[in-house]
Amino acid sequence: MKPAALVFDAYGTLFDVHSVVQRCESFWPGAGAKLSQLWRSKQLEWTWQRSLMRRYVPFSQITRDALAYACAALDLALDEGRTDTLMREYLRLALYPDVSDALGQLRTAGYRLAILTNGSPDMIDPLVAHSGLSFDAVLSVDEKRIFKPAPEVYDLAAKRLEVAARDVGFVSSNGWDALGAKSFGFRVWWINRTAAPMDRLDFQPDGILGGLGELPAALTP
Amino acid sequence: MKPAALVFDAYGTLFDVHSVVQRCESFWPGAGAKLSQLWRSKQLEWTWQRSLMRRYVPFSQITRDALAYACAALDLALDEGRTDTLMREYLRLALYPDVSDALGQLRTAGYRLAILTNGSPDMIDPLVAHSGLSFDAVLSVDEKRIFKPAPEVYDLAAKRLEVAARDVGFVSSNGWDALGAKSFGFRVWWINRTAAPMDRLDFQPDGILGGLGELPAALTP
Repeated sequence: MKPAALVFDAYGTLFDVHSVVQRCESFWPGAGAKLSQLWRSKQLEWTWQRSLMRRYVPFSQITRDALAYACAALDLALDEGRTDTLMREYLRLALYPDVSDALGQLRTAGYRLAILTNGSPDMIDPLVAHSGLSFDAVLSVDEKRIFKPAPEVYDLAAKRLEVAARDVGFVSSNGWDALGAKSFGFRVWWINRTAAPMDRLDFQPDGILGGLGELPAALTP
Repeated sequence: MKPAALVFDAYGTLFDVHSVVQRCESFWPGAGAKLSQLWRSKQLEWTWQRSLMRRYVPFSQITRDALAYACAALDLALDEGRTDTLMREYLRLALYPDVSDALGQLRTAGYRLAILTNGSPDMIDPLVAHSGLSFDAVLSVDEKRIFKPAPEVYDLAAKRLEVAARDVGFVSSNGWDALGAKSFGFRVWWINRTAAPMDRLDFQPDGILGGLGELPAALTP
């Protein structure tokens, strides 16, 4: 059965964070990759830990905090100017090259399209506006004050789109996000651009794709 | 006020996992450090993600799964024999050199001593028996089917020891565990052996120590 709506993760799935890595490298030559990696790790760890501690703060705050932590850990000098420049980079990330065409095809095929992201409105709304894409809904976990992969988050998407969980097609490049959605009851496509192993979280995605460009064909029976 | 009981994290706080790293290196020369790091990262990530997904499995299962994932990701050959050998290493980890003496002093000073660990009973019970240490309680999150830093876990320790949260002194080398305990209401000492920056999770520990050997003096008014 054709999904009634398609829900996409944002960072790393539709939007490429590579420009942030480049900006890190320009500020701290030779340390950009290592900094970006630690920044991203702490950012995610704190979403999970804060969710479990029930100490939610918006993703924009976590992202700032994680940058400060990563710079301190690697002994890199950080000031307000560099912080602001890097945070602004998040508001104008490039789309992966195959995204616009794929979403256009899916729209033409009659699918409703939505975003479900950890990003807080202050981050995701300007980013979507900058991209020129249009969605039927741009949903942030911020409403539920808990991060992915908590079931409350996926439930928000089903409820807001007024679609049963089994009729939602969910697309994410994060294996744990894909499987969190599957655990909740969505149909799931995992975008695995790097040929990574599957996370071992008791579930399997309905499909594994090398990029978003493969999604329209994967949805055609 | 003197804490009524002291509760210790196990892995990395009392017990040194270095022998597991060494065993990895002996199996896969040149890849031991990288493998151990990825193994540990996935192990922790899955405790958080499974807790949020409400898909708990015991820590021993997560530890096995994370080893298989890390070997697959790094293209290292793993068989049942190596898996079993590495898992057995967890049952006889060495204590950090200053632990026995510090715990002896604290026992003499009249403190009740307990362990609160993510480790499931099949991992932690043989390890404590092997160490020769004695505790008033060895508590596993397994009873609550959720991992640290969920408040349910710290509550288990307070309830089981029949002590108010503010009268528990909690000791962990994991910053997020220390702050999860602080968020719950324990008094907290963070063992920071590597001079790492503090996690940014809205709380601060009551004290930061370079090793467990410093704890008896830190508790003396």
